[in-house]
Amino acid sequence: MSGARKTFRIDGDFEMYRGGIIRSPEIAYETWGTLNERGDNAVMIFTGLSPSAHATSSEKDAAPGWWEDIVGPSRPLDTRRYFVICANSIGSCFGSTGPASINPETGDPYRLHFPMLSLEDIALAGKQLIDHLGVDQLAAVVGPSMGGMTSLAFTTMFPEASRSLLVISSGPRSLPFSIALRSMQREMIRRDPDYEKGNYELGAGPITGMRLARKIGMVSYRSAEEWEQRFGREKVPEERKTGDGFALDFEIESYLEAHAQKFTGQFDPNCYLYLSRASDLFDLAEHGGSLEAAYGNIGPQKITVVGVSSDLLFPVHQQQQLAEGIAAASPGKDVNYVEMPSIHGHDSFLVDMDRMRPIVQEFFAGL
Amino acid sequence: MSGARKTFRIDGDFEMYRGGIIRSPEIAYETWGTLNERGDNAVMIFTGLSPSAHATSSEKDAAPGWWEDIVGPSRPLDTRRYFVICANSIGSCFGSTGPASINPETGDPYRLHFPMLSLEDIALAGKQLIDHLGVDQLAAVVGPSMGGMTSLAFTTMFPEASRSLLVISSGPRSLPFSIALRSMQREMIRRDPDYEKGNYELGAGPITGMRLARKIGMVSYRSAEEWEQRFGREKVPEERKTGDGFALDFEIESYLEAHAQKFTGQFDPNCYLYLSRASDLFDLAEHGGSLEAAYGNIGPQKITVVGVSSDLLFPVHQQQQLAEGIAAASPGKDVNYVEMPSIHGHDSFLVDMDRMRPIVQEFFAGL
Repeated sequence: MSGARKTFRIDGDFEMYRGGIIRSPEIAYETWGTLNERGDNAVMIFTGLSPSAHATSSEKDAAPGWWEDIVGPSRPLDTRRYFVICANSIGSCFGSTGPASINPETGDPYRLHFPMLSLEDIALAGKQLIDHLGVDQLAAVVGPSMGGMTSLAFTTMFPEASRSLLVISSGPRSLPFSIALRSMQREMIRRDPDYEKGNYELGAGPITGMRLARKIGMVSYRSAEEWEQRFGREKVPEERKTGDGFALDFEIESYLEAHAQKFTGQFDPNCYLYLSRASDLFDLAEHGGSLEAAYGNIGPQKITVVGVSSDLLFPVHQQQQLAEGIAAASPGKDVNYVEMPSIHGHDSFLVDMDRMRPIVQEFFAGL
Repeated sequence: MSGARKTFRIDGDFEMYRGGIIRSPEIAYETWGTLNERGDNAVMIFTGLSPSAHATSSEKDAAPGWWEDIVGPSRPLDTRRYFVICANSIGSCFGSTGPASINPETGDPYRLHFPMLSLEDIALAGKQLIDHLGVDQLAAVVGPSMGGMTSLAFTTMFPEASRSLLVISSGPRSLPFSIALRSMQREMIRRDPDYEKGNYELGAGPITGMRLARKIGMVSYRSAEEWEQRFGREKVPEERKTGDGFALDFEIESYLEAHAQKFTGQFDPNCYLYLSRASDLFDLAEHGGSLEAAYGNIGPQKITVVGVSSDLLFPVHQQQQLAEGIAAASPGKDVNYVEMPSIHGHDSFLVDMDRMRPIVQEFFAGL
């Protein structure tokens, strides 16, 4: 466990958005910078599906965070100026209560007895965390990918809780192409005999299913253009070839395998299933009766929506519609749409730092 | 077996492009129409990865073929005018010799003892078939998808064998995105415990692996736009829901499952693996030393390349490059590039008939 990680226990029953309760769940989080006297310089980051709360390094934990280039002193989200908070999502497995946690009522892991997870649960836990930290109103909520959907949930459920909103490579709901890919990922995990219907031993479990799911993930996170430029039809060096005609002899196959192997063992399979399904189920329209009505219920005055031209998971047209929809629903607001012309697909916010930095910088400069 | 299907046995050893031999392989094929006296009205269709030789129905076999709307009397490829030939690819499992066929030397199925398959082998078998049928020179070679790559192989290996070439939703070689998807499909099949390292009982085998592979296939064959328009976020009716939180409750999930179930049992898993890998390995550059040189070695005088704007597997830029490359290498030739603005992705040639028909019609009208 990282030295920078803190834990907040929510007192009593946590009521889940789609029914069921969790008794006194814990939320793992990190903070950087200092809350000022007026208490108005806090920024909350909601994460994508798989990251922990460790968005960036600090004196207490020098390991690079998942958004190291964006968050830190003198970086676009400047921790000398802002009090930055990042939590591990409820339902995940990096310190927050989720399917791999022990159910205090039974003494066993929740596994599939964990109630259905929704991004609204992550948003509510985030609200309880900022209340706990003494933050009345955030300067900004920032959410890339799944975290963008969580941010939209948060700012409609708690419209007064933040003055601004930065949604990156996300959307008001998942489209069928994304649902299809995630559905296949879940099926690969659940069909692996080592999944044992969810009752695998924690830390072990469906390695093959998780590897295959991660490969599908990489296909949806990157882009065909990037791979064409980067790998083309390169083969692995002769000494790495096995002679098996079906071996992973193309560099693209080898690259996917390396990413897949790095992922397995890191992430609990049941937690992955819950977070994946929560992403499918999210529909901002539930927060108003229609998408148009929900757009009008988003609280922040300043909103920036960032899309990437090569994103397969949340295509730019969806994000243009999001920005236009919010602007139409709330004519007085400062709503911006920024398109990043990156070839790095959905993952551009993690890998195309030269394009991402100035966008985040400009957002915060304008607050 | 269909009443229209004929079989041609290749005498002696068939030498495979990447080494190895098959003793006296059989090629299943169908023909429609009549070879005229001059012998100059024959058209050869090379198929995609999974179809049989049954491209269209006839009096002998009334079942609709895989390209029923394109091939037939008064259809765009008019069988009153042309003598149309379609073969099941060598290496496949619909009557032609492949990994599921009995090896006459052992009395057992070849399975993984089948030599590595290449699209050049399919092209060579096609050449031997037209020789057998008494066709000196084809009026046209037509190839959609994998068949387009086979057609490019055929027209460089046998430059005098056809006067024209129609390549649809294909390319001179596979790009890493396509290789990645096929690699995952193969891994799903091979990782299914019922695959038994290729030694499953013929007709049984890795059902789950084939189902999952087919779902990945559907993702690569169709497009996100199509699914957004067609399914959106529709859920299956209440009576089909199981109450399982991870069940296939979105219509897109149910649609993929229906397609996947239809596919399994139809196609031999080992044959699928061989044809899939052959698609990865094909590189037209091998037929000249570079792509540019290979373009110059393509025989036909009239060449049309058709691409679809929403194709993920063979993106249009690749097909523009193919048409431009051929035109640049052979300035005297009649080279056309046609872009179909369809949302149906790679499968447009099978499903968007209103856009496909006039393109094939115009190609043959110009011969």
